[in-house]
Amino acid sequence: MNTNCLINGEPRDTIAVSDRGLQYGDGLFETLAVIDGCCEFWERHMHRLSRGCERLRIPAPDPELLKAEAAKLTEGQTRAVLKIIITRGSGGRGYQIPSSPQPTRVLQLSDWRMHPAEFAETGVQLRTCQQRLSRNQALAGVKHLNRLEQVLARSEWNEPEIAEGLMLDELGQVIEGTFTNLFLVENEKLITPRLDHCGVDGILRAVMMDLAFSCKIECGEQTILPERLVNADELFITNSLIGIWPVRALDQHSFPPGPVTRRLQHALTAFRQSQGT
Amino acid sequence: MNTNCLINGEPRDTIAVSDRGLQYGDGLFETLAVIDGCCEFWERHMHRLSRGCERLRIPAPDPELLKAEAAKLTEGQTRAVLKIIITRGSGGRGYQIPSSPQPTRVLQLSDWRMHPAEFAETGVQLRTCQQRLSRNQALAGVKHLNRLEQVLARSEWNEPEIAEGLMLDELGQVIEGTFTNLFLVENEKLITPRLDHCGVDGILRAVMMDLAFSCKIECGEQTILPERLVNADELFITNSLIGIWPVRALDQHSFPPGPVTRRLQHALTAFRQSQGT
Repeated sequence: MNTNCLINGEPRDTIAVSDRGLQYGDGLFETLAVIDGCCEFWERHMHRLSRGCERLRIPAPDPELLKAEAAKLTEGQTRAVLKIIITRGSGGRGYQIPSSPQPTRVLQLSDWRMHPAEFAETGVQLRTCQQRLSRNQALAGVKHLNRLEQVLARSEWNEPEIAEGLMLDELGQVIEGTFTNLFLVENEKLITPRLDHCGVDGILRAVMMDLAFSCKIECGEQTILPERLVNADELFITNSLIGIWPVRALDQHSFPPGPVTRRLQHALTAFRQSQGT
Repeated sequence: MNTNCLINGEPRDTIAVSDRGLQYGDGLFETLAVIDGCCEFWERHMHRLSRGCERLRIPAPDPELLKAEAAKLTEGQTRAVLKIIITRGSGGRGYQIPSSPQPTRVLQLSDWRMHPAEFAETGVQLRTCQQRLSRNQALAGVKHLNRLEQVLARSEWNEPEIAEGLMLDELGQVIEGTFTNLFLVENEKLITPRLDHCGVDGILRAVMMDLAFSCKIECGEQTILPERLVNADELFITNSLIGIWPVRALDQHSFPPGPVTRRLQHALTAFRQSQGT
């Protein structure tokens, strides 16, 4: 794995043990697709990062500074992954936030993760995880560093043919995958779980909603129970790196390849090209 | 702040950015009181750490190795704090756990935190936090590194006269303080909130239960709603560093100094002395 890293603008790949990112998971992250030297959906990622900082009351980094640092790492990269971590930095007494926090900016470039081509074409297999997502309005939607639930959920299976795990919340409602958001198609309408109490407000999730609007596909957020999924016409999952993967199987249930998913995949490809990446 | 640090036995105070402790909060910690070169309640802390590692499926560190490393840092320290962090180390693909994890051992020595003497004598003032604890059976009791809820709760007040914040869970049940466990006295019986769905299984909490048994004070874990607290005869909070602090006020409610709390404080002092620390 070829990794390049900048910390507060300096080439380094270690952080202080005292950093609150390690001590408490006190920070946020973004994972961006780098294509031909450009970070895809940069503005959207920066917007989410800044909203997340506001939610956690971490001073948001200067987007221009981040952009310049990202450019240093991504220049000449045909295909790569850029992870940006913002922590509250070191200091404070125990959990108490320091009076003048000095956030830590971590930019990590790693190799592009290749997935089998059929994942995007014929779709992937999902399993329902035992591990639940806990409900917490203060953290819902935020891409924060407290990810033990995802780690435990992902540890439930090792079968390479299972691409993703579906996570329910503590009430048994469907929320998302361990690293993706979920969409259902019902009667040509697009539905995605509400994220009021948990889950990550994915960049591709928002892109999907915009694309649905352009494609004149009705789209909404709803409270979704697991039994509803097996009766959906189509299911698909999204994130910034994978784009759209149709779901061809969830546990014992199979889904045929779906026209709405395919239409949105084409719309996403066109949208990405129009964005110049 | 005088800090000494060992990472995997080597004197260092930085960790790899790729460490899952930073990336996901994928790890655990212990905070120990160091008194005259000894770590108080060492065996209990090691037992909890090992149970926590088991719960998170992190290979537990060799306790003898940890003991030797702790001894290096604590030798000659009259009064200090030792924090031990165990992470799952680096590696794995995204949330997926590496097939042969190499955990990271961090031992951090810091200065003893002085608190006003009256905290232990006449008691402290508590406030009820708005920030709730989310419910998650897989993580309940474990002293893991996902501590954003505590950070947000602690950020709700700055008044130095408020020593601690009381946290309820998502259902509105009383669980604990941001860095302490809570006990109620009702009709000379000791009651502490159940930790089945959230909260940290504190070392001093367990010591309290043992001391209550020795003192022939009935003690049990119960589901507790906030309205019950104001009618309690006594309230106190505990942790490994502070011992026992009587609660003299919770929000608008005052509590008189209580005989059961005082008795347990004396029993704890005697117990600590009998432990040779």
